[in-house]
Amino acid sequence: MAIQKKLSLMIPGPTPVPERVLEALSRHPIGHRSKEFQDIVESTTNNLKWLHQTSNDVLTITGSGTAAMEAGIISTLSKGDTIICGENGKFGERWVKVAQSFGLKVITIKSEWGKALNPNEFKNVLENDYQKKIKAVILTHSETSTGVINDLETISSYIKNHKQALSIVDCVTSIGACNVPTDDWGLDIVASGSQKGYMIPPGLSFVSVSKKAWEACENSDLPKFYLNLNSYRKSLKSNSNPYTPAVNLFFALDEALKMMREEGLENIFRRHNKHKLAISSAMKALNLKLFADENFLSPSVTSIKTENFDAETFRKLIKDKYDILLAGGQDNLKGKIFRIGHLGYVNDKDIISVISAVGLTLIQESKISVEALGEALKKAQIILNQ
Amino acid sequence: MAIQKKLSLMIPGPTPVPERVLEALSRHPIGHRSKEFQDIVESTTNNLKWLHQTSNDVLTITGSGTAAMEAGIISTLSKGDTIICGENGKFGERWVKVAQSFGLKVITIKSEWGKALNPNEFKNVLENDYQKKIKAVILTHSETSTGVINDLETISSYIKNHKQALSIVDCVTSIGACNVPTDDWGLDIVASGSQKGYMIPPGLSFVSVSKKAWEACENSDLPKFYLNLNSYRKSLKSNSNPYTPAVNLFFALDEALKMMREEGLENIFRRHNKHKLAISSAMKALNLKLFADENFLSPSVTSIKTENFDAETFRKLIKDKYDILLAGGQDNLKGKIFRIGHLGYVNDKDIISVISAVGLTLIQESKISVEALGEALKKAQIILNQ
Repeated sequence: MAIQKKLSLMIPGPTPVPERVLEALSRHPIGHRSKEFQDIVESTTNNLKWLHQTSNDVLTITGSGTAAMEAGIISTLSKGDTIICGENGKFGERWVKVAQSFGLKVITIKSEWGKALNPNEFKNVLENDYQKKIKAVILTHSETSTGVINDLETISSYIKNHKQALSIVDCVTSIGACNVPTDDWGLDIVASGSQKGYMIPPGLSFVSVSKKAWEACENSDLPKFYLNLNSYRKSLKSNSNPYTPAVNLFFALDEALKMMREEGLENIFRRHNKHKLAISSAMKALNLKLFADENFLSPSVTSIKTENFDAETFRKLIKDKYDILLAGGQDNLKGKIFRIGHLGYVNDKDIISVISAVGLTLIQESKISVEALGEALKKAQIILNQ
Repeated sequence: MAIQKKLSLMIPGPTPVPERVLEALSRHPIGHRSKEFQDIVESTTNNLKWLHQTSNDVLTITGSGTAAMEAGIISTLSKGDTIICGENGKFGERWVKVAQSFGLKVITIKSEWGKALNPNEFKNVLENDYQKKIKAVILTHSETSTGVINDLETISSYIKNHKQALSIVDCVTSIGACNVPTDDWGLDIVASGSQKGYMIPPGLSFVSVSKKAWEACENSDLPKFYLNLNSYRKSLKSNSNPYTPAVNLFFALDEALKMMREEGLENIFRRHNKHKLAISSAMKALNLKLFADENFLSPSVTSIKTENFDAETFRKLIKDKYDILLAGGQDNLKGKIFRIGHLGYVNDKDIISVISAVGLTLIQESKISVEALGEALKKAQIILNQ
């Protein structure tokens, strides 16, 4: 008889959840219009602002990250508006679809999956927009489907120079993993989701909204109700929600944000960076190739090519033998890459476990030597010890 | 020093959550694209169909009951469509707002708050619609804000006779509390939320969709993305979700639906009916007046008038002394009524506790005699023993 499963989630979300957070999650619910719940909303809102490095409003929606991005788009824009959408992966594609579903005119700036978006292309389009037709630039910071991080700092500086256009940014797998200084970079809408760097299960999503974005909300004519940010803003004034929120996920959020404050932003970013470098360095030592451009590796997920074997079979071997769940490739990448999530509540042990599991499976399949695995772990150790 | 709070939730949602369900909620999350999660979705879907007494698709959305209602409305209708909206409370009002936000033409059929909608008014409007302009009738079954249950069985029979119009019904506080035979009554869209009869915390909502409603979805032109039911239908074919679902709430849902099957639909309905009758009978014995028409009392919430005292102060006394949270009146009813929720995971002890707490507080405020409380409890006991 098999022993009880003891799963390690190493996918880019849902991410592992700390015991403290699971305990908070399993408390008996309380009334969502009670003083006790208002106190929790006040606490989470303050800590969300801290995490976003912003004095903007940060709103919490019961829904997925997609709901948060859609809320940002449809609350600020109007039918027929022209926008730019950066597209170099599955999530970039999704935001194009959202925009088109609501009748926006989309200028797409693409780059090959696995490559970063080119900031100069944004610069050119924005600088040539003399009539200020472009109302927003929609971007994905960390493209979860490919493991690429886009140069949001540079692109957002061009958006700021345009003056008219809003930045609407998917930071779903970057917030809580690397530096996203909302105010410093002048980000107007920042969307994220609970099952990522936040270390809580899925079900809540977050939208930070700048003053400029709120002004745009006043003129937006796209039809909306549940995802209308104005309603969330109004309720937040009394630390409340317009519709019944996921109360228990708020308990979890409150606890997880406290843990994040205890660790500190710099430490969180440093930990994610070390894990990213350890994984990428070890994978190369295992004779595997990274899918993403090495100058633009996401802090939260590393994509690895499987040139001479099927990635899905490989993932299954690792899952069955070692109880480590890795992510597969999406759409055309299915079978061609696997992805290692190293986002949220992940420690050095998780990193050496996944390197060992990948290495041992390659050895078993006669793909690499035993020495290569030793070498890969040693390379990881050097980085983890820094 | 005060002892630890031991809160009884007697509001119409969030409702109390059983330990078995809290335990399921606090499991470590799993991947939402894994076989293990697909198995859970298959199980919850089958049990949702059982609960809805339907062979229609029942979809699960991460969001509140409002999200589920909006999804039903915007997925089936088109801009400029004429609809009927029944309005006899805060939720009826909300569906009018949703419909208007999306550019629908709304014929409202109203009745005073506390009174039931008159089915004959629906009959008249539907029978006189010779050109079949009316595309849908939006209704609230149990109006949570007032404690009134509308005669959905009769009204839905008139909608069926019209042939063209869809029924879109808010069953948020009726599903899992009283009989809602979706197929027998021919209900096209039935929306509900997790924090009610389902006995799990808020964060999930449910939409049952008939064949006729799916046909309407094909022609709907209202803009939508996250709340587009077509995406949920497509994913459900592989027991999956279009966007990351609230995985841990699915664990809870699966456990709660199993508990409901163990109890059985008839027993669940009988329990809610007894509790409703016990509460209403006891409140009258305490010399209080019911706010809702006694022929149309909701199975899940009882509204009580406070003619010569402030309902908010009264609620606070009960909360502070007995740790029982009651709901207040909404909007114009604030301070004028309080509402006792008896929905979901509620037993006879909860019923006699709340009657005692209300009675003792009235005695303390010199509003009733000691004998009245004894009488009220005795009346409740007779009903509870039936």
